[in-house]
Amino acid sequence: MKKIITISREFGSGGRSIAKAVAKELGYEYFDVEMMEQLAQTKGIDSNEIEVQKVEGAGTTFFGSLLAGKKFKENLNLEDALWTRQRDMILDIAERGNCVIVGRCADYILRDYKEALHVFIHADLEYRMERIVRLYGETNETPERRLIEKDRRRAANYRYYTDREWGLSKNYDLALSSSKLGHERCKDIIVGIARAE
Amino acid sequence: MKKIITISREFGSGGRSIAKAVAKELGYEYFDVEMMEQLAQTKGIDSNEIEVQKVEGAGTTFFGSLLAGKKFKENLNLEDALWTRQRDMILDIAERGNCVIVGRCADYILRDYKEALHVFIHADLEYRMERIVRLYGETNETPERRLIEKDRRRAANYRYYTDREWGLSKNYDLALSSSKLGHERCKDIIVGIARAE
Repeated sequence: MKKIITISREFGSGGRSIAKAVAKELGYEYFDVEMMEQLAQTKGIDSNEIEVQKVEGAGTTFFGSLLAGKKFKENLNLEDALWTRQRDMILDIAERGNCVIVGRCADYILRDYKEALHVFIHADLEYRMERIVRLYGETNETPERRLIEKDRRRAANYRYYTDREWGLSKNYDLALSSSKLGHERCKDIIVGIARAE
Repeated sequence: MKKIITISREFGSGGRSIAKAVAKELGYEYFDVEMMEQLAQTKGIDSNEIEVQKVEGAGTTFFGSLLAGKKFKENLNLEDALWTRQRDMILDIAERGNCVIVGRCADYILRDYKEALHVFIHADLEYRMERIVRLYGETNETPERRLIEKDRRRAANYRYYTDREWGLSKNYDLALSSSKLGHERCKDIIVGIARAE
């Protein structure tokens, strides 16, 4: 039985909804740390905004509790500070176990956990294009451009924090194409492995 | 039902024995094109040796039939000539269907085949080290050195012929860690997907 499942995924691949379905079926808690990284990457964010988040969210949400508490070290920039908090939070969640964690560095942070199953979900460009337009609407940029930009950013971010390459099979116990296999089957494979032994 | 299964694997991961087990369970033909590439990479091979192989093996074995027939084009070196033959052979095998093909470029050669399932098998270094010593014996080089050398060569070869990166999740429908999941479970997952619909 795997007590911890990390799911990293390409934008638009449906990895997050597969992760939720896995958590539901196993009765595990679901954690989504993607929002942290999105915030860190948003232009114009500054410590004033962090203060607001602290007041509004502290202790009540996952995101708020992540930002609450200790002051950032002087020599860390905001992104690094968020990364450090996120890492600590992921380690805390993992200690409790019975969890599904979505976020693209969780596989790295928990790489030495024997009880963890590390999964990567990817999909064809066409599949992801159709999906992001349907789920997130149109923007000024073409869907293809949005995906390429996002892939590049995720790869760079992952490399910076982990010194590994984004999407390499060897970083995961299991990598699945959701466009080829379908969401239901991806969920079944992950649940099947988690339940084994 | 997937009619064609390609299995690419790291040296020592057990991918080949998993492939044989998959073929057996599905009642598919098993093809191993790895030997071709090994031959192409062997020092000292020349056209005289190819001639011998032609006479001895032509038409009777997979390897022989691959070498039999047409003369190599003048401007191809031996490795490129073998690659071309191997590609043609893989396309022939795929046309017949109901097959498991082991070889690290089959995923690329058959990338547009809707009926194909492309699998990558990898494993921890420790697992592979123990396995290659047990199966292939000791050599003057350390097992770790042998694996690193082999990985580097495969990656370079794959990149040269496919312009893609070796072991990237996106090149496969399914990537599995045999050391984490075990051979039996890897086989079951592949067979399960092949049999679906």
